[in-house]
Amino acid sequence: MVQRAQTLGDLARELGLSFRGDAARVLQSIAPLTAANEQQLSFLANPKFKAQLADCSAGALIIHPDLAEQWAGDCLFADNPYLAYASATALFDPLDKPRAGIHPSAVVLSDKIHKTASIGANCVIEEGAEIGEGAVISHGTVVGRECRIGAFCYLHANVTLYHDVWLGRETVLHSGVVIGGDGFGFAPGKNGWTKIHQLGGVRIGERVEIGAASTIDRGALEHTTIGNGVILDDQTHIAHNVVIGDNTAMAGCCQVAGSAVIGKNCTFAGNVGVVGHITICDGVHFTARTVVSKSVDTPGTYSSGSVMMESGQWRKNTARLPRLDELFRRVMALEKKQKD
Amino acid sequence: MVQRAQTLGDLARELGLSFRGDAARVLQSIAPLTAANEQQLSFLANPKFKAQLADCSAGALIIHPDLAEQWAGDCLFADNPYLAYASATALFDPLDKPRAGIHPSAVVLSDKIHKTASIGANCVIEEGAEIGEGAVISHGTVVGRECRIGAFCYLHANVTLYHDVWLGRETVLHSGVVIGGDGFGFAPGKNGWTKIHQLGGVRIGERVEIGAASTIDRGALEHTTIGNGVILDDQTHIAHNVVIGDNTAMAGCCQVAGSAVIGKNCTFAGNVGVVGHITICDGVHFTARTVVSKSVDTPGTYSSGSVMMESGQWRKNTARLPRLDELFRRVMALEKKQKD
Amino acid sequence: MVQRAQTLGDLARELGLSFRGDAARVLQSIAPLTAANEQQLSFLANPKFKAQLADCSAGALIIHPDLAEQWAGDCLFADNPYLAYASATALFDPLDKPRAGIHPSAVVLSDKIHKTASIGANCVIEEGAEIGEGAVISHGTVVGRECRIGAFCYLHANVTLYHDVWLGRETVLHSGVVIGGDGFGFAPGKNGWTKIHQLGGVRIGERVEIGAASTIDRGALEHTTIGNGVILDDQTHIAHNVVIGDNTAMAGCCQVAGSAVIGKNCTFAGNVGVVGHITICDGVHFTARTVVSKSVDTPGTYSSGSVMMESGQWRKNTARLPRLDELFRRVMALEKKQKD
Repeated sequence: MVQRAQTLGDLARELGLSFRGDAARVLQSIAPLTAANEQQLSFLANPKFKAQLADCSAGALIIHPDLAEQWAGDCLFADNPYLAYASATALFDPLDKPRAGIHPSAVVLSDKIHKTASIGANCVIEEGAEIGEGAVISHGTVVGRECRIGAFCYLHANVTLYHDVWLGRETVLHSGVVIGGDGFGFAPGKNGWTKIHQLGGVRIGERVEIGAASTIDRGALEHTTIGNGVILDDQTHIAHNVVIGDNTAMAGCCQVAGSAVIGKNCTFAGNVGVVGHITICDGVHFTARTVVSKSVDTPGTYSSGSVMMESGQWRKNTARLPRLDELFRRVMALEKKQKD
Repeated sequence: MVQRAQTLGDLARELGLSFRGDAARVLQSIAPLTAANEQQLSFLANPKFKAQLADCSAGALIIHPDLAEQWAGDCLFADNPYLAYASATALFDPLDKPRAGIHPSAVVLSDKIHKTASIGANCVIEEGAEIGEGAVISHGTVVGRECRIGAFCYLHANVTLYHDVWLGRETVLHSGVVIGGDGFGFAPGKNGWTKIHQLGGVRIGERVEIGAASTIDRGALEHTTIGNGVILDDQTHIAHNVVIGDNTAMAGCCQVAGSAVIGKNCTFAGNVGVVGHITICDGVHFTARTVVSKSVDTPGTYSSGSVMMESGQWRKNTARLPRLDELFRRVMALEKKQKD
Repeated sequence: MVQRAQTLGDLARELGLSFRGDAARVLQSIAPLTAANEQQLSFLANPKFKAQLADCSAGALIIHPDLAEQWAGDCLFADNPYLAYASATALFDPLDKPRAGIHPSAVVLSDKIHKTASIGANCVIEEGAEIGEGAVISHGTVVGRECRIGAFCYLHANVTLYHDVWLGRETVLHSGVVIGGDGFGFAPGKNGWTKIHQLGGVRIGERVEIGAASTIDRGALEHTTIGNGVILDDQTHIAHNVVIGDNTAMAGCCQVAGSAVIGKNCTFAGNVGVVGHITICDGVHFTARTVVSKSVDTPGTYSSGSVMMESGQWRKNTARLPRLDELFRRVMALEKKQKD
């Protein structure tokens, strides 16, 4: 899709950056440093790669002022070029926001829809649900009873919210997301499982983004709670009663079991799994596929898992794992004998 | 959302429990033991925590008769307080069942809809599909040809059933669930993969509950089969031809590969993975993230995986795994020499 | 559901196979070798199981000509019986293709719908989207702006495509699939995360099949790209900027992180995870749940992970892992002393 062209001067003004070169230069799109042509903007985020500037054909770059001498072309100067690039992408994004109003095919049972909100085709908005100023509810999305959708939220197509789910302003939910499904609560008995009705709701903060096909369950008695500024990638699963602190980020397919409490400013690589009823302090990083099997009270980086090998080698070595404790004992015995 | 208030006397009658105190006492909602106030009901499931009774402010408790002396307030007596709590949640649940009838926006191509069933907005019910007594099909849900939905089933919004999927009575499917998608069957050839049309269906028992965004594929030639009383949490994946026995429970994100046969009364912690074509006997428990790589014929608890460490320590130790077999051999050599 | 009966003679003609027996014999359905009755067709794919022919009651079999003497009944001869079986399943599949035309409840904002395409109930086709010859868009599916859906594609119910997603001809998307959601791109700053608008699209080849509830994110600046003939099972997650080569196959729940490049003709067992920014050459196989933590430049089979044990044994042995490096050093010390 064709991006929304920008001039260098407009970019500088919109992004609040100083620049060097032709303010009228038209930049059709943003492209990676090694692929950009004369009609494109690019950026250098990591000074480690500054050698690539020599071969760069971009029409203009976002760079750190310290590199001004390394690049002869037009440029925007930013203390944090990656952050400036992030802001620039919003300007080049060609998508128009859907028009305000309710599509005639939508079924709206609530009278709390802000007049500037956009309700797409085939949506269902249940009784008592509030849709805030400028919010977008895309096609096929269902908003349950007494939900509250903050101003400028964007719910993409085919999202499902059960009842009593609240979203703070400017929160984005991608397609296929399900929020407020029943937490996995059942009491065992002689005749099988008895369902525990999940009476809590879900409370999600402002400026949260939740990736496609993610699931966040409602609380058993209290609310499942996601802080402000949290970002969750696709296919995340958050179980009932979980609490996630502000600005925590989880890459794709992370899984958090019931009643876990996650701190602020944590970063999870892909497919990290957190067991239930544990607490993770602020500022913790987990590497990919870590199984977080106990509470963490010290900020830092944690990992679990094995290492990839050629399969024959892997089978031979992992076959030894069930005897690892025995091996320790045999080495202790050797040490003792040698000492004697 | 405001829960449905109950009096102590009504609760005792509905739950079939004896009680102590004021039958007319109004309990507005259920809350956790440590958070409940005088207008709330709570429960003590585990006598280990009976010390918490001293500080409890709940208006009434569900407790075991053995603890009658430990708690001076109003109470309901239950041999299994957790099970009684589970039953109580149904009474406090404020949600009304949707009204019977077919929403005018639904597209219904079948004449086998029970008159007491509720078909929500924008649903599609294909030819020959049966919808049983009191069943609820929520907004945006699609029910394929010749499906059979048992009495009092509840399909939440935006569920998709392909053709020839049968659900026993009182089964609950959460939003985003897809049942009857094609199993992953392809034959390799010189020109790539040839699709094997999946000609079996899916047969799901009574009182089953399936969590949000779960997928259960149709069988290749015979049916994928889920027993009565099975409970599956969100984002479960069940591949084609799998058989799961009655009352087996799987926590979030479990994955069962094709043609695996799982026994009755098994319990899977989160994100357990089962490889294809193996058999698990009744009464097996797997801990979180276990990779079930072979059949299990003895009830018990099984695990796999590594242990979480600070990442520097983890890298140093896991780097040794590809030489673990060598280490065993070196220890054997040491033992042999020492013996000589 | 009742399969579409075939005669032996028709099967031979349609599949281009020679046969032995009664051309007029009616075969009602396909069944597994050990379950098939006289009215059913079956097949023997692996000569290792030829002993099963003695007890087989099938009306006809697909077998290799080398086994002609081992089976007295009617048969079809195929050099690759499994491939011939795959082709046969298409003939027995009872499902009729939906009729061409646009359902009156669909919201179609594009004028580029081929007259032979089928647009189901409650679909939304956005402006500028092209729907090719004979393509099927099932109920509730949303196709975003300027998407291009090739000829004879089949999008099952409740699929969501964002804008600028292209599918080559004959590609199949199962229900719940989301393609073109935003890649997980955010720049960290003092005040939390700034979203990087994802300006690339998704380009998917011909004859691709993508399983239910899978997610494929759009590229940050360039396109996420899936080659021809790729097959992905349910709940696959493909992050932004990933490139997957032709005919690569991934079983259920595989996860590929951003900017990974996967070769052609690779096969992934279930729930393999690939970290970001690495390259996998053609012809690589990963076993179930492997964490692909580095690039692979040599075809072959790779694995990671531990081994399943009874949980007591597992705890005892995995507790030793954090001291594995120490154990190596102790053995080295023993060896040194013994040598001295």
